[in-house]
Amino acid sequence: MKTIYEQALDFHRKYRGKLETKSKVTLDSKEVLSKAYSPGVAQVSIEIGKDVHLAREYTLKRNTVAVVSDGSAILGIGNLGPYAAIPVMEGKAAIFKEFAGVDAFPICLDTQDTEEIVKAVKQIAPVFGGINLEDISAPRCFEIEERLRRELSIPVMHDDQWGAATVALAGLINSLKLRGLDKSEVKVVLNGIGAAGVATARLLLAYGITNIVFCDSKGMIHSERRDLTKEKAELLEKSTAEPHEGVLMDAVKGAHVFIGLSVAGALTQDMVRTMAERPIIYGLANPTPEIMPELAKEAGAFIVATGRSDYPNQLNNSLVFPGLFKGALEENVRQFDISLFLSVAENLALYVKDPTPDMILPNMFDRGVVSIVVNTVKEWNSNLK
Amino acid sequence: MKTIYEQALDFHRKYRGKLETKSKVTLDSKEVLSKAYSPGVAQVSIEIGKDVHLAREYTLKRNTVAVVSDGSAILGIGNLGPYAAIPVMEGKAAIFKEFAGVDAFPICLDTQDTEEIVKAVKQIAPVFGGINLEDISAPRCFEIEERLRRELSIPVMHDDQWGAATVALAGLINSLKLRGLDKSEVKVVLNGIGAAGVATARLLLAYGITNIVFCDSKGMIHSERRDLTKEKAELLEKSTAEPHEGVLMDAVKGAHVFIGLSVAGALTQDMVRTMAERPIIYGLANPTPEIMPELAKEAGAFIVATGRSDYPNQLNNSLVFPGLFKGALEENVRQFDISLFLSVAENLALYVKDPTPDMILPNMFDRGVVSIVVNTVKEWNSNLK
Repeated sequence: MKTIYEQALDFHRKYRGKLETKSKVTLDSKEVLSKAYSPGVAQVSIEIGKDVHLAREYTLKRNTVAVVSDGSAILGIGNLGPYAAIPVMEGKAAIFKEFAGVDAFPICLDTQDTEEIVKAVKQIAPVFGGINLEDISAPRCFEIEERLRRELSIPVMHDDQWGAATVALAGLINSLKLRGLDKSEVKVVLNGIGAAGVATARLLLAYGITNIVFCDSKGMIHSERRDLTKEKAELLEKSTAEPHEGVLMDAVKGAHVFIGLSVAGALTQDMVRTMAERPIIYGLANPTPEIMPELAKEAGAFIVATGRSDYPNQLNNSLVFPGLFKGALEENVRQFDISLFLSVAENLALYVKDPTPDMILPNMFDRGVVSIVVNTVKEWNSNLK
Repeated sequence: MKTIYEQALDFHRKYRGKLETKSKVTLDSKEVLSKAYSPGVAQVSIEIGKDVHLAREYTLKRNTVAVVSDGSAILGIGNLGPYAAIPVMEGKAAIFKEFAGVDAFPICLDTQDTEEIVKAVKQIAPVFGGINLEDISAPRCFEIEERLRRELSIPVMHDDQWGAATVALAGLINSLKLRGLDKSEVKVVLNGIGAAGVATARLLLAYGITNIVFCDSKGMIHSERRDLTKEKAELLEKSTAEPHEGVLMDAVKGAHVFIGLSVAGALTQDMVRTMAERPIIYGLANPTPEIMPELAKEAGAFIVATGRSDYPNQLNNSLVFPGLFKGALEENVRQFDISLFLSVAENLALYVKDPTPDMILPNMFDRGVVSIVVNTVKEWNSNLK
């Protein structure tokens, strides 16, 4: 039996590209070509030249998203550069189309300089109705996303941040409900303050979960530390927890929830046993979680979630990004913000009629998921007006 | 009856985008998703990270071309910017797929600075197997193409230059045969020394047609003029004609061939009557040629060609670019050069078994055309090795 990795290589060698383009019309006569292309198309160009907003009415811009990466943080593997990013971005583009009917195209940039990336994305933006940033390493990803949101008038989202954060919060809402804990009382430890960690923290805080202890590879984040990034200092400032010097093992004592966005094996069974009774454990490191689900359960965990498809409770961004961009394209959303991600998380949680410890989130192949997210975007956008 | 321009607007409003993306596989189970995307795709990224050339084996790069414009010279309309370029580039991408099965995607750049364009195209290059530059104004287009050819290891062609030039030479080869003129004796006047004019001149010279008088909007190009661009000076240097001061009317006297890549109405019936007997007239300004075919014929023209689909002898780049890139992608051609365009022109001319004054080139919908061009690329590339 071949491993999944061998199977994936075979699969990619066979298809030589998972994504293709397709003309919506058969170009088999001068008549159709004279409308779709020269000379007729000249009039379309003239109209758009007078009012660029017409690009949405007359071109692929209306339904097309760029999936942009610099290859600096590919999946859990690391910085392998733009060529290695292609199969991932291409797969993501294929998911966009298959799940939500959104046309998406991979853009893998041969630069890892923040200014250059911002400039390149702005330069290619005319064709696109949205920008999905992907697998760009922290802390550059924060500035890149923030700059692009400010400087472009099409919606921009770094999915490693907000897709991950939105799914994590959605799952957590149902987990707390099942465990009988209120957001005002729950004690959370968040380990790993990279792209996903920072966004998850921001979203939890916005939701009203404020007792969060943050840990990075050096241990607990506390006010005496002199090595904190802008983002870590901001999170510490907003938390109501009172962290002190110590490592993860110290942090988890008595906590109700552990959220790992860090590295394989960071959480041990002994550490789980020091947490509050029946804790909630999210081990989201890919492909190997902070603690394997069977070990976490054995040590007393009530709910375990991972990024893996071979265990229950897979926290998968595919629950969010297809519908999010579909809704944004349909509604001509000018820009995303955290209040939208909050609404999406709440509605995704509500969509699971009867959550159980082994089903805190909807199945990603459930066709209703995209509709829920699209409708959330619509409602959110109409409330903005 | 609606005009073609009104029909084109209706058509674009109806389709809202002529191009879409498509996943080659149905992503409807965890099994397939785990090969096409995470976790399996990680192994594909790792392999490509070790050897970037594997991107051709495992991703869409093998069959995908970027159609890049800055919107500075859209069709015959002018500088309307990147948004107005979208429907044209999208149409071109659709032709790539429909005619040759090549996946192409429009990239419309929000900059018209030469350095910025070169940098942006290099930055987005990883995903693509070839770069089709389009509707970029002269003289910037010359440096942009030259720089990208030197600095990228995927083939680059500015189609307004070489597509136009290759089709013009192909038609001219058969026109001269029909008229009974040898390339060594034919006198040509080329009016309009922009992107297409410079490339057509270079290709004619490379083919061995050297008696060419060049004209621009100020009249004949001759050695006393102090306003010549680098390209115009180079062409003058290579021509065996002996041009003097004068306007187009002076230049065409006694010429066998007029090639116009200039503006509507530049050639009058009176001017045609001063040319050699039974002249060959190419009026390639779009959408209105330098002289309308019926007027040229009335004034004695033997063969008339235009860019229009509603007259015989439409010189259309679609005869060249789909097969050219298809061949280049299949053969992993490192870079294009003028010797390839020469071979393509010769083989396209030969493909017309019995040319007539009303059929100097094959029909663009003839499926054999792409094969001829692909085979020319293959032969040319194997001779390079």
